[in-house]
Amino acid sequence: MELLNQHASIRKFEDRAVDPKILESIVYSGSRASTTGNMQLYSVVATQDKENRQRLAPLHFNQKVALEAPVLLTFVADFNRFSKWCTQNSAEPGYSNFHSFFSAAIDALLVAQNACIAAENYGLGICYLGTTTYNAKEIIDVLKLPKLTFPVTTVAIGYPAEKPELTDRIPLKGILHNETYHDFNEAEIDELYAYKENLESMKQFVLENGKETLAQVFTDIRYKKSDNEFFSAKMLQTIKEQGFSF
Amino acid sequence: MELLNQHASIRKFEDRAVDPKILESIVYSGSRASTTGNMQLYSVVATQDKENRQRLAPLHFNQKVALEAPVLLTFVADFNRFSKWCTQNSAEPGYSNFHSFFSAAIDALLVAQNACIAAENYGLGICYLGTTTYNAKEIIDVLKLPKLTFPVTTVAIGYPAEKPELTDRIPLKGILHNETYHDFNEAEIDELYAYKENLESMKQFVLENGKETLAQVFTDIRYKKSDNEFFSAKMLQTIKEQGFSF
Repeated sequence: MELLNQHASIRKFEDRAVDPKILESIVYSGSRASTTGNMQLYSVVATQDKENRQRLAPLHFNQKVALEAPVLLTFVADFNRFSKWCTQNSAEPGYSNFHSFFSAAIDALLVAQNACIAAENYGLGICYLGTTTYNAKEIIDVLKLPKLTFPVTTVAIGYPAEKPELTDRIPLKGILHNETYHDFNEAEIDELYAYKENLESMKQFVLENGKETLAQVFTDIRYKKSDNEFFSAKMLQTIKEQGFSF
Repeated sequence: MELLNQHASIRKFEDRAVDPKILESIVYSGSRASTTGNMQLYSVVATQDKENRQRLAPLHFNQKVALEAPVLLTFVADFNRFSKWCTQNSAEPGYSNFHSFFSAAIDALLVAQNACIAAENYGLGICYLGTTTYNAKEIIDVLKLPKLTFPVTTVAIGYPAEKPELTDRIPLKGILHNETYHDFNEAEIDELYAYKENLESMKQFVLENGKETLAQVFTDIRYKKSDNEFFSAKMLQTIKEQGFSF
């Protein structure tokens, strides 16, 4: 519980490799997560070779953490392995569709989170790279991912060289809904986000970016509509190219 | 680690409610998971009222576990709350697209897995209901989910009234790939699935279903192409209806 509640993403790592046995143990713990019909619709690709990490880093927009982490684990929704098993056992796989893609993505993400907790339990630090879905097409090329697979997230792993503060969260009443979704009125939204907006770091963030409100930093700079729309079209196209047609 | 490695889904529960403080603590631990840009793109709806559980159960195909668990937690990809905050802070949200939907789904799934581990740490048992994406449209109605939200998974929670064996997993070499994806040849696939195929329970499963191979039980009965295609179209339509257009 302590481990879950004290999680903070690590973006600076010691120059120290992760023992292969530890890496295997982490992925094993990942694989103990629940999985759709026990089909295990995922694979994990570990990138440790420096040249390969340098190939991946630009696809993660050259975030320092992607460049410097000793290990990148890419979590892949995978219906390739299972479908091959079907085909060679006189069974016709029916998984080249969106719903199957999404089921495999769920599987891969539960594995990822279990693996992160296992890693932290070994004293390692982790950072999710949300950039995987932006450049899935290029990551597929670098990692040689076959049809019926799709990379859904990447986790940078290594021994921490920093100890960041916990980041802010909105109050629980903004997250947990009793019986039905409680939609929020303006005053409630104000209240939920007040703590975040009043953090010195966030005020600084607004100032540095020359914006009037913190929300504008998100909409105009960090997660822009035009980028989201561009990467939506690209991602949908890549899902289809990987054989999940719709 | 023990907790992760000893996980087995629980489908039979004691007739005993879960203390609201424990439920809050579980969801809080969920919310400590990594989240895209710290936007917390998720909500959790707790269904405990008997009538509401009876409304949800048919949408989970009346699985006994859905009918009998004292709590169902539905994990919702949620760009509604964040977008409202943007709008009332002079910022134009740009999240009505597929990529934003998928980012929120990732967020919600990491919360779900953390919450499951926290629940197990309290001695509770959990079972994922993969059926959520099949009937998302109807679940949206029952839980009154607004536009820019989408239910991605549901977890049944309660005090265990059974202690099932761990389920089988394929060997780690079928999951963990070194540097690039190692695609599998026929002999390798045979080897990966041999243990599963030779389990007495699986042989029984093939027999009961009148099939020749275990793979056929999956393709012809449990996860059929025609069902997958039907639910793909339905799910895509629902994602769009919820305001994530593409």
